Amino acid sequence: MTLQAVGIIAEYNPFHNGHAYQIDQARQRTGADVVVAAMSGNWVQRGEPALMDKWQRTAAALAGGVDLVVELPTASALQPAHLFAAGGVRLLAALQCHWLAFGTEHPDMDYQRLMAHLPTNPATFKRFDQTYASLFQGYLREQTGITLNAANDILGFFYALANQRAGRPLTLLPLARRGSQHNDATITADTAFASATAIRSAALAGDWAAIEPVVPTSTLTRLQQTPLTSWPDFWPWLRYQLVSSDVTDLRQLYQITEGVEYRLKRAALASSTFATFMHAAKTKRYTYTRIQRQAAGILLQAKPAEMLAGPQYLRVLGYSAAGQAYLHQIKKQVALPLVSRADRDWQKGPGELDDRAGAIRTLLTGIDQDYGRIPVKKDDSE
Amino acid sequence: MTLQAVGIIAEYNPFHNGHAYQIDQARQRTGADVVVAAMSGNWVQRGEPALMDKWQRTAAALAGGVDLVVELPTASALQPAHLFAAGGVRLLAALQCHWLAFGTEHPDMDYQRLMAHLPTNPATFKRFDQTYASLFQGYLREQTGITLNAANDILGFFYALANQRAGRPLTLLPLARRGSQHNDATITADTAFASATAIRSAALAGDWAAIEPVVPTSTLTRLQQTPLTSWPDFWPWLRYQLVSSDVTDLRQLYQITEGVEYRLKRAALASSTFATFMHAAKTKRYTYTRIQRQAAGILLQAKPAEMLAGPQYLRVLGYSAAGQAYLHQIKKQVALPLVSRADRDWQKGPGELDDRAGAIRTLLTGIDQDYGRIPVKKDDSE
Repeated sequence: MTLQAVGIIAEYNPFHNGHAYQIDQARQRTGADVVVAAMSGNWVQRGEPALMDKWQRTAAALAGGVDLVVELPTASALQPAHLFAAGGVRLLAALQCHWLAFGTEHPDMDYQRLMAHLPTNPATFKRFDQTYASLFQGYLREQTGITLNAANDILGFFYALANQRAGRPLTLLPLARRGSQHNDATITADTAFASATAIRSAALAGDWAAIEPVVPTSTLTRLQQTPLTSWPDFWPWLRYQLVSSDVTDLRQLYQITEGVEYRLKRAALASSTFATFMHAAKTKRYTYTRIQRQAAGILLQAKPAEMLAGPQYLRVLGYSAAGQAYLHQIKKQVALPLVSRADRDWQKGPGELDDRAGAIRTLLTGIDQDYGRIPVKKDDSE
Repeated sequence: MTLQAVGIIAEYNPFHNGHAYQIDQARQRTGADVVVAAMSGNWVQRGEPALMDKWQRTAAALAGGVDLVVELPTASALQPAHLFAAGGVRLLAALQCHWLAFGTEHPDMDYQRLMAHLPTNPATFKRFDQTYASLFQGYLREQTGITLNAANDILGFFYALANQRAGRPLTLLPLARRGSQHNDATITADTAFASATAIRSAALAGDWAAIEPVVPTSTLTRLQQTPLTSWPDFWPWLRYQLVSSDVTDLRQLYQITEGVEYRLKRAALASSTFATFMHAAKTKRYTYTRIQRQAAGILLQAKPAEMLAGPQYLRVLGYSAAGQAYLHQIKKQVALPLVSRADRDWQKGPGELDDRAGAIRTLLTGIDQDYGRIPVKKDDSE
């Protein structure tokens, strides 16, 4: 029997009831045998360190119903929507997923049909690649009258676009999101759903009573028992890096252009906390998220070449028995090298950026992230 | 009346009774009107952060009898003996000092005459420039039978060499050192002299009773009242820098060659303290001091071009009334730009490395080091 897979691009930062609901829906709607997740590693799309490390988040995802977790490399995760989406689609297509399921505020929108409105002028097209979602929003409104407002709609559009460009290997499956909006800041008492943002705030404050109703037990236990990280933990290093680098060095890093290096250096010297730094660094031109991504790129000393290379390998973070069977089924046909154990060749080669991104976390928590680590197996008692 | 100056190349880390004795001797032996010191800034020759910052050390030196303190730039201070000496001689010659006084274990040695034994083959000569004192020691022993053993003798030799190369602007004045040897680790109870090394250890341990007999009151008070720094304070940043830099980046830094970058990176990840790091990084080939200098170069992200430029300006750190009069006398004839207040032009230009070296200290202590700072005036009540 050939197993069929539905893919999801996720961060699980942390895994909550909304994610579990999405996985159930994806299974029911497709009849897929396995659910595959391409998940951000230790740094996430909004330019922040993940709350828990990728191994804990993998274990929680497996407990929540995912069968196979591969790492969305730092180079794809720490990116604006179009590159984040392109990286995820590339991994899921390489893993021979049949469907791509994604949550959206408007599941009835025909994302594939939006592709008919892509600009035909290659120059315009390239411009979308280099800039941000907002540019495309304006274009689409002009061309079709359709306004993509919600963050997940925009992401959905970029999934469709990446899939289109890759020759449509995946069948798109937009799914209605359950519960709270993506950026809701607080947990509402009378529901089983909350945004990951609200859950992170509550977890950093140790408010377990608020979190308990909105996450599976396997997530709650991990949040209580593992080191949680956020930007303030990394701030002393970012500050030192900004102060000790000369502007010429900073300009060698990803997306550090247009004089932002001077403003970031000034803000670093003058700010004793990450919050005051961000306040000092923010302008109308640079969104909060964009500055956070620049800050993460500086902390990791990420170069343009490594950030723009796209996924170079499939790093397996964990699997269930079904996920392992699926891996066995496809392993001879995957289009990217499978990495099940990070060795020196990986560390000094294509995995160098991910290795640094993990090692910086290791300095803080003492928990090794990459070299020698092997995939997590699903704990069936959870 | 034309004032005449005797120059001293120093670190005053910290200023102690041996330094005060040397200054008295230099005045008596020369009849000079002013004593000028070229003093290391916030990083010293053995590759360590100075115990007190350059402003406190300047104030202590003025209290101890120095009339004018200029900064030996980081690019000259964090160097092996021959470049350290060359930088100091360049500054004192630019300041039109008549003599260069220096302490030595063998004041009767004719350092100038040693110059007769310099190799005449330019290739050999260049080799001395690029390597270390030990190479020359071997050569001199072969050529003359003279063995330079003590650290200060070697430094004396390099002062003579730098002076020779600069056209002999300074008259050499070797002075007998008083008291303890340079590297003595402990303070002996029955004497007024101790090594700076021993005094630093006692100060970091808060052993004021041991220090009190061997330093002027002005030093003791400062040691008790200002933030003292040592490598362990900077270790978290060095460790992060080594972990977050890829080896290609590390090889862009001063003296990071021959694969040492791999060993330092490995040692950093495995070591939670600076002491264990140094233990892991040390080999027969690389002395402790050399690794400390490499470590300081990495922490400051010092590039070969900026480390090899030599002094580009005269940064005035402090003066007495006589020192100020002397500055006034020479200011129209000095061969390097005088910097009495570090402004943006200095900060973004020739002072960039010194500014970074100070700013990293500022992150730790909260005390601004450079931008906008003006020279310390001698406090005549001390």
